[in-house]
Amino acid sequence: MKNFDITIPTRILFGRDTEKQVGACIREYGFHKVLLHYGGGSVKKNGLLDRVEESLRAEGIEYVELGGVQANPVLSMVRQGIKLCLEEQVDFILAVGGGSVIDSSKAIGDGAGNPEDDVWSYFLKEAAPVHHIPVGVILTLAASGSEMSQSAVLTNEENGLKRGFNSWTHQPLFSICNPELTYTVNKFQTGCGTVDIMMHTLERYFGWSRDSAVTDRIAEGLLKAVIEAGRIADRNPEDYEARASLMWAGSLSHNGLTGLGREFLMQVHQMEHELSGMYPRIAHGAGLSALFCSWSRFVCPAAVERFAQYAVRVWNVEMNFENPMATALAGIQATEDFFKSLQMPVSLEELQVEPEKFQEMADKCTNFGARTLPGIRELGKQEMIQIYQMAYPRR
Amino acid sequence: MKNFDITIPTRILFGRDTEKQVGACIREYGFHKVLLHYGGGSVKKNGLLDRVEESLRAEGIEYVELGGVQANPVLSMVRQGIKLCLEEQVDFILAVGGGSVIDSSKAIGDGAGNPEDDVWSYFLKEAAPVHHIPVGVILTLAASGSEMSQSAVLTNEENGLKRGFNSWTHQPLFSICNPELTYTVNKFQTGCGTVDIMMHTLERYFGWSRDSAVTDRIAEGLLKAVIEAGRIADRNPEDYEARASLMWAGSLSHNGLTGLGREFLMQVHQMEHELSGMYPRIAHGAGLSALFCSWSRFVCPAAVERFAQYAVRVWNVEMNFENPMATALAGIQATEDFFKSLQMPVSLEELQVEPEKFQEMADKCTNFGARTLPGIRELGKQEMIQIYQMAYPRR
Repeated sequence: MKNFDITIPTRILFGRDTEKQVGACIREYGFHKVLLHYGGGSVKKNGLLDRVEESLRAEGIEYVELGGVQANPVLSMVRQGIKLCLEEQVDFILAVGGGSVIDSSKAIGDGAGNPEDDVWSYFLKEAAPVHHIPVGVILTLAASGSEMSQSAVLTNEENGLKRGFNSWTHQPLFSICNPELTYTVNKFQTGCGTVDIMMHTLERYFGWSRDSAVTDRIAEGLLKAVIEAGRIADRNPEDYEARASLMWAGSLSHNGLTGLGREFLMQVHQMEHELSGMYPRIAHGAGLSALFCSWSRFVCPAAVERFAQYAVRVWNVEMNFENPMATALAGIQATEDFFKSLQMPVSLEELQVEPEKFQEMADKCTNFGARTLPGIRELGKQEMIQIYQMAYPRR
Repeated sequence: MKNFDITIPTRILFGRDTEKQVGACIREYGFHKVLLHYGGGSVKKNGLLDRVEESLRAEGIEYVELGGVQANPVLSMVRQGIKLCLEEQVDFILAVGGGSVIDSSKAIGDGAGNPEDDVWSYFLKEAAPVHHIPVGVILTLAASGSEMSQSAVLTNEENGLKRGFNSWTHQPLFSICNPELTYTVNKFQTGCGTVDIMMHTLERYFGWSRDSAVTDRIAEGLLKAVIEAGRIADRNPEDYEARASLMWAGSLSHNGLTGLGREFLMQVHQMEHELSGMYPRIAHGAGLSALFCSWSRFVCPAAVERFAQYAVRVWNVEMNFENPMATALAGIQATEDFFKSLQMPVSLEELQVEPEKFQEMADKCTNFGARTLPGIRELGKQEMIQIYQMAYPRR
């Protein structure tokens, strides 16, 4: 187990009707003016926004609204939010939505906290935010884990670059998580969320360091719970316990806990960012689903025992002691079958990605060959192209 | 899953040599004068206290010392610490030790933060602390989980009452956890710690509410890791990974995570407090070890499916579908065998407890019949006497 230094201070208010506490919660912290940030019309249509506004008004909290965040949040919206925060002297940002809205809120909080900086420079890691406007969350989608994490991902529409960075400024002050708010999430988005949650754990689990018994067991347990809940939520979208498991596992999977003491770099996430950066119509979870098993088969020979452990402990595959590789591959196959059972894509062809773009994606992911990504297997440009190619054919 | 509201803000600095960062860490938070609180001579003898003091001096941080905390921390020492803090204008308490030292520090922090109150009134739940002097930890024993929890337990020597209470003021600001510092913990104390860590998870796991898939899986995973690490550390006290697993699992087991969304009350802990309250020579972990399996056999008929799940998932017992009770009992037996393998007591006779005291212990635990403890089975005075009696005969 490697040394670590962690704080996860986000307060989680979890359960039925918790969104009604938002006004009192913000009042308790002493904020005066809120930017209410959200996505498309669903939170308006289903009445959630009304309930939130009512709760704010009941506590005498002023607010301004900024809706319209897209599935892959973009820089121009963030710039608009920063301007609004400064003009309106906003001191708190309330994200009502999923990962995109939360990440957009985090970026606005960075930019408005440091008006002298260009917020995109943080995503290019040329600078770091010193101040911030704090963010709170009312979560409507179990997927990104952004409600409890220090990460944020943004796309610059001018050049198609999708970039993320981690910062203490991104740790939400509180997140209100009511599983009932996800009953209306459709099958496809539920599937994307399930994959995304699993991937946050899997990418840490398949890091390159050994010896992390407690972290392994937590990761394996979370994966089992997510697989079970994902199956149930796919069939019965209004199963409270399944939705609750997905939501809480989603927060735990990306708050740091499932990777403690391990060295990892999320290679599949990095490769997926190029995919959905270039094809904004591709949902993040769908992109991950299409890439993960090919990535796994590519790197598996370098960590057969690890993939075998995954197969045995998570998928209850019987260990083949004479042929551990067979066990390892059975675990990957079980994962692929599960993704398919959720109608998630397991190939890039299904996503209508053009193979002639693989070169460009690998270029962007390696800063045009200037970097490689460490991992079980180090990935340079050529390895990435190979994985994209392996992921292409329909299965 | 029941609604919950949780924040676990304690920063964890985990790993080799981390104690050397303590001065810089305290300096970073801006504190000026530290109460250095510790137990017996071991931290002096093994040089840890010297390293800590050197780190404080290097950062120009003043400190006063108060050593001598006993295994079951007592009120008189806490009063002494409060007096010292007030006289010396201490603004930070550094606990160097295990649960007893940490709990003593928390109580001193409460008392010195509210000098107008009697600190014991908090433990009687007649009042609650409003202010506090914050506590930091250098952990030397993996057991209590106090380094990341809001709980503290204290014994009033005047009447033999051992009482605990939870408060946000008890959440340590940071805890420095170096597994190497536990290499010198002897077999008996390591066994006590292993049992205590398991019990923090088990008492939540065997709460009375259903439906907590994510929490269950995390609890089961932690238990497996602790059992494995406990076995290894018993044989090889200097196995870093085993010591690291025990230490990190110890923190996770009592920080709230393993009981989220569940209703529980730690019945065995409550019954053990009367035991070691009356017999201060009995180590907390040893008392728990002597009581748990009898408590389990007593309550098991009211939750056979839960105990069977425990047996199957944690101990790899084959499910007996025709006789689930047989499976449930096999899991309890496996637990007892494991405790025995660590040379932990599994009966009160081994601890030389006098059976004629059972009545008095049950009286104290129920406030002389004024309360019962809710659980899988509600425990009143008569039920407690029955469990103490079941736990008596040597096995």
